[in-house]
Parts: sequence; C-alpha cells; structure tokens
Amino acid sequence: MAGSRFEYVKGFELPDPLLPGTFLLYRLDGHSFHRLSDVHSFQKPNDERALKLMDHAARDLMDEYTDIVVAFGESDEFSFLLRKSTTLYNRRHAKIVTTLTSYFTASYVLHWPEYFPDTPLRYPPSFDGRIVLYPSEKEVRDYFAWRQADSEHRSPSASNPYAYRHAPDSLVAAHINNLYNTVFWALVQQGEQSTKDAHEALRGTVSSQKHEILFNRFGINYNLLPERFRKGSVLVREEVKEDSDPLPSSDVESSTENPNFPDSEAKVIQRTKEKKSKKARTRTHVVLYHCDIIRDPFWNERPWLLCA
Amino acid sequence: MAGSRFEYVKGFELPDPLLPGTFLLYRLDGHSFHRLSDVHSFQKPNDERALKLMDHAARDLMDEYTDIVVAFGESDEFSFLLRKSTTLYNRRHAKIVTTLTSYFTASYVLHWPEYFPDTPLRYPPSFDGRIVLYPSEKEVRDYFAWRQADSEHRSPSASNPYAYRHAPDSLVAAHINNLYNTVFWALVQQGEQSTKDAHEALRGTVSSQKHEILFNRFGINYNLLPERFRKGSVLVREEVKEDSDPLPSSDVESSTENPNFPDSEAKVIQRTKEKKSKKARTRTHVVLYHCDIIRDPFWNERPWLLCA
Amino acid sequence: MAGSRFEYVKGFELPDPLLPGTFLLYRLDGHSFHRLSDVHSFQKPNDERALKLMDHAARDLMDEYTDIVVAFGESDEFSFLLRKSTTLYNRRHAKIVTTLTSYFTASYVLHWPEYFPDTPLRYPPSFDGRIVLYPSEKEVRDYFAWRQADSEHRSPSASNPYAYRHAPDSLVAAHINNLYNTVFWALVQQGEQSTKDAHEALRGTVSSQKHEILFNRFGINYNLLPERFRKGSVLVREEVKEDSDPLPSSDVESSTENPNFPDSEAKVIQRTKEKKSKKARTRTHVVLYHCDIIRDPFWNERPWLLCA
Amino acid sequence: MAGSRFEYVKGFELPDPLLPGTFLLYRLDGHSFHRLSDVHSFQKPNDERALKLMDHAARDLMDEYTDIVVAFGESDEFSFLLRKSTTLYNRRHAKIVTTLTSYFTASYVLHWPEYFPDTPLRYPPSFDGRIVLYPSEKEVRDYFAWRQADSEHRSPSASNPYAYRHAPDSLVAAHINNLYNTVFWALVQQGEQSTKDAHEALRGTVSSQKHEILFNRFGINYNLLPERFRKGSVLVREEVKEDSDPLPSSDVESSTENPNFPDSEAKVIQRTKEKKSKKARTRTHVVLYHCDIIRDPFWNERPWLLCA
Repeated sequence: MAGSRFEYVKGFELPDPLLPGTFLLYRLDGHSFHRLSDVHSFQKPNDERALKLMDHAARDLMDEYTDIVVAFGESDEFSFLLRKSTTLYNRRHAKIVTTLTSYFTASYVLHWPEYFPDTPLRYPPSFDGRIVLYPSEKEVRDYFAWRQADSEHRSPSASNPYAYRHAPDSLVAAHINNLYNTVFWALVQQGEQSTKDAHEALRGTVSSQKHEILFNRFGINYNLLPERFRKGSVLVREEVKEDSDPLPSSDVESSTENPNFPDSEAKVIQRTKEKKSKKARTRTHVVLYHCDIIRDPFWNERPWLLCA
Repeated sequence: MAGSRFEYVKGFELPDPLLPGTFLLYRLDGHSFHRLSDVHSFQKPNDERALKLMDHAARDLMDEYTDIVVAFGESDEFSFLLRKSTTLYNRRHAKIVTTLTSYFTASYVLHWPEYFPDTPLRYPPSFDGRIVLYPSEKEVRDYFAWRQADSEHRSPSASNPYAYRHAPDSLVAAHINNLYNTVFWALVQQGEQSTKDAHEALRGTVSSQKHEILFNRFGINYNLLPERFRKGSVLVREEVKEDSDPLPSSDVESSTENPNFPDSEAKVIQRTKEKKSKKARTRTHVVLYHCDIIRDPFWNERPWLLCA
Repeated sequence: MAGSRFEYVKGFELPDPLLPGTFLLYRLDGHSFHRLSDVHSFQKPNDERALKLMDHAARDLMDEYTDIVVAFGESDEFSFLLRKSTTLYNRRHAKIVTTLTSYFTASYVLHWPEYFPDTPLRYPPSFDGRIVLYPSEKEVRDYFAWRQADSEHRSPSASNPYAYRHAPDSLVAAHINNLYNTVFWALVQQGEQSTKDAHEALRGTVSSQKHEILFNRFGINYNLLPERFRKGSVLVREEVKEDSDPLPSSDVESSTENPNFPDSEAKVIQRTKEKKSKKARTRTHVVLYHCDIIRDPFWNERPWLLCA
Repeated sequence: MAGSRFEYVKGFELPDPLLPGTFLLYRLDGHSFHRLSDVHSFQKPNDERALKLMDHAARDLMDEYTDIVVAFGESDEFSFLLRKSTTLYNRRHAKIVTTLTSYFTASYVLHWPEYFPDTPLRYPPSFDGRIVLYPSEKEVRDYFAWRQADSEHRSPSASNPYAYRHAPDSLVAAHINNLYNTVFWALVQQGEQSTKDAHEALRGTVSSQKHEILFNRFGINYNLLPERFRKGSVLVREEVKEDSDPLPSSDVESSTENPNFPDSEAKVIQRTKEKKSKKARTRTHVVLYHCDIIRDPFWNERPWLLCA
C-alpha cells in the first residue's frame, strides 16, 4: 500500500497519559473576550446574557461528560472537576483537553442566538483550556476557593475581560475586586464620568468607601445585587435519592427551588439524567447554584464530589 | 487578601513548552462524526457541503493564525503546518492546541447554516486536536503524503466517519480506499443493495474491478469525479509578488483560476490578507487547491513553506 | 562575547518539574547485573556481600539526602521514598533522578573493596533509575508491598539477575519465588544436578513441596534462613526522641538490637545524624531492618514516614 | 499471587520517549566539585590529573555506548552527542540519562586511584545529567561551540568549580575567561597575593592586560600553556578506513600523533573497537583531541558525525 512507507511519521506522536489517581481540574478561559464583549456590546460590569450562555455551555459539557462532578464559572472562565478515578480517553492529555474545549465552544456558539437574539455573532469566539492535576482533596477545595475568592477580589486587567483595561495590572491591583467594577461602571454609566476620572476617583478607596459611593450616590446596595454576579455559577452533579419523589426527566431547563439545599442563595436550575452505570436506579442531575464554595458546608453536604 | 492563601494551587500548573526549532503539525479530527453525519443526513459517500464547511473553518483558522503555512483536509480531519520558527503563545502546548481547536470548532458551528440552510445543527459537534513535532522537512513532506495517501486508500471503519461501519476494521481493511466507498454507495443507493450485500459484493475485488463496476453498472468514471473527493483539500498561504498585478483584497470568497499554478487540478478560491510584518509590502493570501501533495512539484514551487 | 551568539541553544533545555504534592518514589536497578554477578563470582542464590554493599550505598544516599524517609532493597534493586513536600532541586526531574543514581553508583564502587576485598571490580557497574509519582499514602504502601511481595514471589528471569536465566519468562513464572531460587541452587550446588535438570525437577512444584525438598534432601529449614534473604532490606529514617538517652553519634556502623522495635525480625544497624532543621534538638538516624512492610504495624508505628 | 493486588502501582510509571529524529545531547556536570577539589587538593587553576580522569570516564562511556559519536569536556563537565537515529533503550528518557550518568560515575570512581594514587577518594563524588534534543545539525554545531567558547570565556563562579568563588556571579562576569583563572592563580600562588587582592588587581582588566601580567610578572606565555587547558577535550569516534593499515586493537591507551589529522593541536590518544554492525569490516575507534570545534574544519572533515 502506498501509505505504508510514510506511516513511520506516526511514530512521532508521543504518548501523553495523565498521572493516575489524581483529580483532573480542567479550566477554560475566553480568548480575547474583551474584544468580544466590545464588538457585541456586552453590558457592564456584568452581562447576564453572556454569563447565562457560559452556564449553558458548561451544563452541556457536564451532561455529555459524566465524569465531571462539579464546575465553577465566572466572567469568561469556567473550571471543571473530573473525578480522580476517571479513565476518560485513557487519561490522554491532549485528547481530553481539546475535546472538552471543543465541545464547550460548539455549545457556546450554537446557543448564542438564544441569549443574544438581536446580536448576531460576528466572528468565531474561542477559548483556551488547560488541565491541572491535584493529588488531594485539600488542593481541589483550595483551587475552587481560589477561583471564587479571585472573582470577588479580581484585578480587572488581569482576568476580567470586560473591565476597564487601564486599571493597574499589578500585584496591588489584585486587591481590586468585583465591587470595584460595579462602582467603576456606576460612575461611568450613571455618573457620566470618563473611565479615566472614574478610575481616579476610586484610587485608594477601601471596600466600605466603595459601598458608600454605590449606596449614597447611586442608591445601589451591593449586597442585594444578583448572586450570580457576586458568587459566580456553581454547577453540581447531584445524586437523585431513590426513595425521593422522582424528579422529572426533561430536556428543557426548568427553574425551581431546590428543596434539598437549605442555602438561601440557591437559585436552582436542574436537568435530570440517567447515570450510565450498572445500577440503573442511580440517577444524577446537574444543578446550578450561586453559592459559597469556599467554606465547608457546600462540600460536607456532598461527600461524593471528592470521594473518587 | 483572601485569595492569597489559596494561590499556592497555581503552582500545580506545570510549564509545557514545545521543543524549539521543530515544525508543529496540528491535526484535528471530528469526534463521533459518524453519528453527526447520520443525524444530519450527510450524503454518501461524500457530502460536498460538509467538506466545504470544513474548508471554510480551516481557512478561517489560517486567516487568524498566520504562522500556519499550509493545511490538508479530507473527510472530518484537517492537518495544519505551523512554521518551525513560530513563537505562537511561546510554544505552550496546551494553549496552542486548545485555542486552535476551539477556533476551528467555533467557525464550523458559526458557518454551519450557510452550508446546511435547511438542516439545523441538533447538538454541538466537537473535534479533538493534537500537535506532533517534526524535526525536518522530510518528515513534514512524508506526513502530508501519509494523510493524502491514506485518504485515497482509507479503511472506512478506521477514519472515514461517513462510511459503512460494518466494514472489517482490520489491517486488511486499510487497503480499501476511497474508491471503495464510492462503489459501495453506488451499489447501495443506485443498485439498491443492502449494505451487507454491497460489502459482500466488494470483498476481494481489486482497484481495476471496482473501476469496472462503477463504469459498467453505473456509468461512473471514477477519474472524472470531483478532485475534492479524490485529492482532499489543500490550503496554501501563497505569497503575493509585489511586481504582479495586485490581487483584489476581499472578504468575500471568489472562485478563480490561479494563473500562477499550472497544475490543471487547481480549482482556486482565494482571499487576500495583509501579512503582519515589518515589510508591509509583502502580502499573503490563502488559496484552496485539490491537488497532489505527495510528489515534488507542489513543494518545489513553494520553497517558503518549509524554509523556517 | 564570543559565546553569546551560540547561547540560544540553551533555550532547547526544557523545564521538567515534577508535580507538587505527590510522593516521589525513586527506584534504581542494576544494569546487566547477571553479567556482573558472573564475572565477579557472586554466590548463589544470594551473595551476602553484594547485598550488604547495596545496603551500604543506600544508607549513604539517605545520609546525604535527608528527604528520603524510607527505602527497600533486594537483589540488585533499591526503592527510596522522598517525602511528598520535598523541594529537592526544585523538584526538577532529570536533576533529581540523575544525581541520586550517580551518588548511589559512586558509593557502590567506592565501597566495593570493603565487601569484596579479594575480588577487584573489573569494569564499571551501572544502575538505571526512575522516579514514579504517587498521589496518596495508599499507593505508596502498595508500592512497597508490591516490591516486597515480588521479592518473595519473584520470577527469576524477570528481575533477579543472579537467577537461572532459562526459567520461563512468563506470567506463570511470576509465581516462582525466592524459595524457588533457594531450592534450585541447592539442587545444583549440593545436589550436583545440571541447571537444566534442576529446573525440570522443580517444574510444577508448589511451595510446600519445595520446602520438603529443601528440608528432606538438604536439611535446610527455609524459614530459618537469614531474614535479609527472605525479607530484603528496609532502611528507615527514625526520629530520635529528645527525652531518650542520646544515641552515640558515630561514623562506624554498629549492629545493635533496637529496643523500640518489638519485631523479632529486626536486626538493627544504625548511624545517627543531626537533622538539618531549626530545632537542632530533633535528630534522625537511619536504621536497617529486615522486616515485613506489607502489613500495617511497620507503618502504624512510624506515622511520620507518610505524613508530609 | 500475593503481588497481583499491588501490581496496579506499576500503572503510575508513565512512558517518557524522546522525540525521534532529533539529536540527543547528553551533558553531565560534577555535583559540588568545588568541595571535591578542595577536599582532594586539586591543583589550581587546572588539575591535569582530574581532567584526565574525566577524559578516561568519557572514553569508557563512548566505548560502551557506540551511538555516542563525539564528546567535549572541560573542567567538571562533559557533553556527548548521540546520533539522531539512535534507538538506545527505545529512546526512553530516564533510562538513558540515568544509565549514562551512572556508568560515567562508576568509571570515574573506579579509575580514581590511577590518577590520584596518593589521594584516596574520601566520599562518593556525583554528577547530574541531562538530555537536550536538537533538531538539526546547525544547533548541534552551535551547542558545541557554545561549550567551547564558554570554557574559554568562563565566569569562575558560574561553572568552573575550581575557581575563586568570590568572583562576581553576574552577566558581566561571563566575560571573565579561563585566562582570568590562570592569572588569578598566578597572582595567588606565585605572587603571594590574597585571593581578595588578586581579584581586585584583575578588576577591569582586558585580555591583553592579563596576557601582559602573566608574561611580565610570571614569565608565562599563555598561548604556550597546554591545549588541554585552553581548548578542553574532544573525543571523536573515528572511522577506520578498510584499506588503511589495521590499527592495533588494544586495551591500553597509547598516545600517538594522528596522521590523518593535520591540525597541529591534535594530541591523540586512541583505542580501537570493532563496530557492532552488519558490516563487520567497518571499525571505529575513539580518538582524543584538544582542538578547535567552533570553526568548520573539524566538522567538515568528519561528515559522519552529524549525518544520522
């Protein structure tokens, strides 16, 4: 066969298995989403449509890849935890990281019109992905805490692609938080300040001062803003108890209060799915929360997330 | 700051630079495209719309990433050569392979309606990607020869996702070529044989016998079939000579005969682009061919493809 | 400077950090030690001088690299556990694995004359080394159990370089144990059988039959053979309690019964060393045992081995 | 079998093949050789015995591993080039780099007494090793040029372990060359200056001034110093022509003038060896030179070094 004398080139494809017995933390980030948000007129400081589209794509990914047990997203990034016992694609690195990134991207583009019906997508948006291995539960917990804390205390220039780009990109700037962006855009949009002036006005202010500006000048109580903006999105693969009333299997998303989760923060959107396992009785469904994942309760109530 | 005591988890992200001085061969493959082709009723053995959509996404990728100098695609796969001197994303492996895969995917989904106006995409299609390093020109040449020879002499079950799945998935099957698929589907669609019978009828036939069946029973001269089907798609970043008549810069694809390429196989679709370089005078544009890339002429006429 | 235009070649040295937070298991194996044992007339089935030389080099390595907390050796191999928090050489893979292998080799050659005073080393013996990462305590425990079980139930052709090479190198052979070698060499050396006949005589025998042959024909009670041969060597970095009587700091090895270790198997050779730490009071010394490390007691009594 | 339930731990040993088709450049460096040179009273600035011992171990390594075609050493480092087509140990990274380092170390320790008959080795000396991949001949040439240029223009604190440690460890210091060390030790040993004063005296001097100090104060013509010190050691696997008179096969090193190498710098020590190949007629032997490897003649006269 003609191909055979060329086939040696296949020998340059080297194996890239990921270490067994470790948690796979897969994170994707929007590529040049500052430009995407400008070109498509995203609302500042948070565009709920864009965030919901991210959530949608993340949920699609979890429905397709059942070894993902929990995910956290905010702004243009999303992190997914694969159970440490996963044998997805024989733990081949490039295969996993590209397939997940591709699937998320496809869902994002496919569902764009549902969230931006009047704003056609003008060019292909893209994401980069990476996989980080964590050996133990502690590091996984701390990873998610890092992302959520970071989203509350975020340097605008470091990772919030929708934020003012002239903010100082420095270690000091890492203390500027999401609160910063909220006040900043209030000053610009309602206060009609230039971005430069708004930035100047906030220089050196502490959190309590920012709260005061928001409340006194613009009547905004930061703590009453949507939890999606303040906490990010948490997608959890919840187990459905057999003795509980069966949850309706549905392709359509339905927003309900989750009775099993007493956290008042929980705004639940759920979709049920048969778990591919020998015990056909065990089912899981992916539930969306906007809740704290830094402290213990979230994890203590879901021991299965980190068990295997 | 709250985040700092968690930030150590960032230390688990290990560097993954690709060896300098080597060619980067990036290949993507459709994930479960057999199912995609069934669900969306792709034509057999080749769906021109699907192939053109692949070409479109590949061209978009080359327009965005100018370090890609040549690409070859067939069926649901595409291979891209990045120049060996590329410093894209500091040659970080995961960053490059995920971003390219994501961009291609986004383009594929975004432009789907143009090629399948009456067939809405029913779920997110995805691709996996990989990067293989090749140290020298010889291996790059042989890689492309391998892919093109493979597309002509292809095991249907191995990699052609649109082909009959019951064909033997074995080393013997590797000798069954694209010709096989053409005869097979002629027997099924025009000959009204079952796929099982068609497969039986072809068992043990050699190329000349397949040509005869096609010609005698169905009046098909295989050698007159579209070159896109027989040769795959070759996208080349061509340099625009300064002293030549300026090519029209256009966002719209225009099909022309390429006067600089005497190969009669060349059906040219071109789009011109300013090259981002110091010499603003040098321009490149990406041109689509369906030509032989196994033999020397293609490469000898374009020494810049492998030079750096 | 002349060197500067060549210095770019340094850029081809890629980083190779090992994942943080994982145990480093470093194992070395003698390279072609079957030949070494032949050329230097090692005793069969076990040469105590050769085993003690291995122990000596292993102890030297542990004295030099205090992040090694426990080691296990048998035949021509030795495994070393580095604490998971080690930052030795910034966890650079090649640096660690080559330096440890080099140091062990140097000690082996340097001390050879002490163990083989009448047998000069005729050529340079060498070892290969590797590092395996284990994420959790369970896997580390199982690794050591695997090596010790393997040394008791060892395929002669697989890894015991001193054993009869014509034994079947197969999965079945993996059930042939060290007991096998003992009977085999009894038959050859005392029974004056050819190696071929001895092998035939043992074909299909089970453990109890081998015990019988040893006892009835040669008067050997296998269970009374030296524990070094039956259990291998275990080197432990023991902590010296502050309130206990100070152990004598000594460069000379002294064989003593270890009063803190009630295992009757323990034949203790110890050497004391100041631990390089802020608390100058805390000292460790490396102690040699020939004891079971498969079951819990060994590990439960030394919780510090796996703690960090 | 008892071992089987532990055997899963073997699955954590990940494959580590080196990219095919690339040159393997293996370099080893003495570990803490500054201390070694102090403890064993090496002569300054160059100890010929120590250098010859390095050469001896390097030659042993080349005799054992015939895929090494050329090597360059100076001070406590040695670089070895393996042909790019080598399949040694299936190009497994850790296996190759540890085995080579171990073998070199063993030879170094084994032969120490021949070079230091009155200075017993007081502790195990060790080396670290690394492998760097180079895709093309140009990079290999530049690598060797870099090492030789570096040895002539060497920062004492950066890599010459025998040199004065208080010299500035900075980029500026990289211009201080071997010449520096020669003048420095002349001032200290013959001029009876303190190391501090000697360093002060040389601060800011250029090459011509150092030459003058050497000549005027100490009567030393730098250019007449042994080429071993000025050029380092070059070990080459030379092919023995069939039609030439057979070279004597010998285990004993014999110093001869190499008639085939017109470079007056060549001080040749050679040992002949049958090449393990199908053509039993082709033989190679390793020859030692102290010659320039930066310019073309060395390479042009030996095209086989870089051919495969």
